[in-house]
Amino acid sequence: MKAELVFVGTELLLGEILNTNAQYLSEQLALLGIDVYYQQVVGDNYDRARAVFKQALERSDVVIASGGLGPTMDDITREVAAEVAGLPLELDRTIEAELRAWFARRGREMSENNARQALVPRGATVLPNDRGTAPGLILPASQGKAIILLPGPPIELRPMFERQVVPFLTARMGGAPLSLVTRTLRFIDIGESQLEDALKDLIASQGDPSIAPYAKTGEVHLRLATKAATSEEGLARIAPVEQAIRDRVGRHIYGTNNTSLEQAVGELLKERGLKATTAESCTGGLIAKRLTDVPGSSACFDFGFVTYSNDAKMKLLGVPAETLAQHGAVSEEVVAAMAAGALAAAGADVAVAVSGIAGPDGGTTEKPVGTVCIGLAAKDHITTRTLQLWGSRQDIRDRTATHALAMIRRYVLGHHV
Amino acid sequence: MKAELVFVGTELLLGEILNTNAQYLSEQLALLGIDVYYQQVVGDNYDRARAVFKQALERSDVVIASGGLGPTMDDITREVAAEVAGLPLELDRTIEAELRAWFARRGREMSENNARQALVPRGATVLPNDRGTAPGLILPASQGKAIILLPGPPIELRPMFERQVVPFLTARMGGAPLSLVTRTLRFIDIGESQLEDALKDLIASQGDPSIAPYAKTGEVHLRLATKAATSEEGLARIAPVEQAIRDRVGRHIYGTNNTSLEQAVGELLKERGLKATTAESCTGGLIAKRLTDVPGSSACFDFGFVTYSNDAKMKLLGVPAETLAQHGAVSEEVVAAMAAGALAAAGADVAVAVSGIAGPDGGTTEKPVGTVCIGLAAKDHITTRTLQLWGSRQDIRDRTATHALAMIRRYVLGHHV
Repeated sequence: MKAELVFVGTELLLGEILNTNAQYLSEQLALLGIDVYYQQVVGDNYDRARAVFKQALERSDVVIASGGLGPTMDDITREVAAEVAGLPLELDRTIEAELRAWFARRGREMSENNARQALVPRGATVLPNDRGTAPGLILPASQGKAIILLPGPPIELRPMFERQVVPFLTARMGGAPLSLVTRTLRFIDIGESQLEDALKDLIASQGDPSIAPYAKTGEVHLRLATKAATSEEGLARIAPVEQAIRDRVGRHIYGTNNTSLEQAVGELLKERGLKATTAESCTGGLIAKRLTDVPGSSACFDFGFVTYSNDAKMKLLGVPAETLAQHGAVSEEVVAAMAAGALAAAGADVAVAVSGIAGPDGGTTEKPVGTVCIGLAAKDHITTRTLQLWGSRQDIRDRTATHALAMIRRYVLGHHV
Repeated sequence: MKAELVFVGTELLLGEILNTNAQYLSEQLALLGIDVYYQQVVGDNYDRARAVFKQALERSDVVIASGGLGPTMDDITREVAAEVAGLPLELDRTIEAELRAWFARRGREMSENNARQALVPRGATVLPNDRGTAPGLILPASQGKAIILLPGPPIELRPMFERQVVPFLTARMGGAPLSLVTRTLRFIDIGESQLEDALKDLIASQGDPSIAPYAKTGEVHLRLATKAATSEEGLARIAPVEQAIRDRVGRHIYGTNNTSLEQAVGELLKERGLKATTAESCTGGLIAKRLTDVPGSSACFDFGFVTYSNDAKMKLLGVPAETLAQHGAVSEEVVAAMAAGALAAAGADVAVAVSGIAGPDGGTTEKPVGTVCIGLAAKDHITTRTLQLWGSRQDIRDRTATHALAMIRRYVLGHHV
């Protein structure tokens, strides 16, 4: 099946907004195995939009469009698509009543423009929109083709596509309507090529579910995807493949789907009733910030120390002046002392400390930009490591924070820290 | 003049990358006063790409394309555009020699595929690429039309467009080649509508330079833009308008162009030889992180305190237990004590402290989610404020950090804090 994407909106042609719907819909259709050969963007102009829809419908089986379904005179997509599909517009009393109720609840009068949102091309399927006023529409066209109209705001488009359009498309492709079921495994402390090596045979067999790795800053994600009648059925098909992956590289999986590393680390600490603390030089508060991004983080985090200067390292964390003088602020000796000092000052169970050269200045031949020392202290335990990171100042700070969080995770899990 | 945008790349049709070039080019062309009626995306397929270029060239004066200029067999844009413009491809010895030298420097053999990057349509203008191997091209076409080919990576496309394509386009529009000169004024402590009100007459006259406001999280930006033969000429035209704006609302301008608020605050502190410190509860390190995002921030920042728990507020900052018990952690009394405590512990010149309910849980009728108290302490001075913010946990934390940085700025400038 060939699908074509059409985006309607002068704001896209003026560069006022970034077309994230284009990437989202393309990615979703690729996962469904539907070919997309063209994307087009056109403004809020009736004649030009009609020409675009006509061309798209001629060369594709399904045209999926977003934008231009609102109540203003600029919103022409409904009328254009109806004309191209050859369907008259009719007032849908149910939608009209819902719109009136929506306005009544807000104590406002419904304008005649708003009533246009209740016009439905004859024979079209209405896709309810639980996040906005503009419903989506599936218009039947000749030769078994279809035009699918979706609202422009991603927050309305995405759930409508996943819950209402995917089953329609899979039914069109033959067989029962299927949904796309995906599960993402999130890895830390393993590189993309190392992961691919470990799973080479599984990835190569590329059966059902499909397995696709994605490299992220300091992490790798693996997406498992399949098509199924229900989410349960899909997940049941994914489960044995996930288990096979976990049998090989499970120790590096910190979470699934949308779980962030800081969330996973926070959960681990909470489960074990542990408190963490941070002593940050080059990251300047970023590790504490990430730990507290997670709601409820007060259960595992009380104190954080940002000790940017040597003076702060000495005063707040008790790092000896001689250690700083002898080894320099970016050294394993100093981060060991920082971590031990933070552990004691906060009365925490585990402390992580970082000191490094984030750049762009401050590097030397011996310690170039990107040199980062990380230390972890617990009651009976101090570990330190030196890393050589790369990229911009921001990259280096981000990767340092990720390494520090990963180190807490390894400690809590009893892995080699 | 009508321009049309064409993006070549199967990776766009698969949703593997976000098409940021579409927004960038559309925005730049709008600033130049050039109409864009259509954008098209097509994959690395010769026939389909040819059809897209042909249609674009028929209905527009200039076709601007990006992607598909690389060395692999997939990279078809050069050949397709040459065919549509009716120009034979010829080997450009200069480009070929440069490519050979590029490979020789890296000790690698140049493949025949790479040599394709030295093919130039007859009569085309070559646009040197100082950030990659693929040069851009301007192909003359019949009826005075043109096809402009640019590399896909934004880091290569943007400087090439600004330095080499804009002068070509402005010359095409008649007259001498002009560049687009813009200057952005960045405002804090003033809302978009308040700013528009203050500048109503200036914005309404909409002369040259044009004035366009943009609302950002917690800030407003105002972009002044004009076309001129040189950057100096453009800036000279912008200067009196900027001065007129500064005369009215200059106290709210914290910086220009790409200066961030944390950069501006850091500069102010450095100029005056002041050290700042932070005491953070709900932001959990974000304010310190932002201050240290800026290279060289060690000149104005030594210590930061993340005191997430009451215990930490008492131990690190000396907040009295009674103050916490009597007023609660989110109170002006507590942030005043936090700021005073941080000031003393860090030996700093100015301290900012925040405590609030970032949500999603923890709100009460009296102190709903989004209630944030901010305190500022200096030698002879303590100020506190209570804010009611809105949005997600992240929004509330971001806005709180922005308010705290703005408060430091007002203090240093001697404004009403």
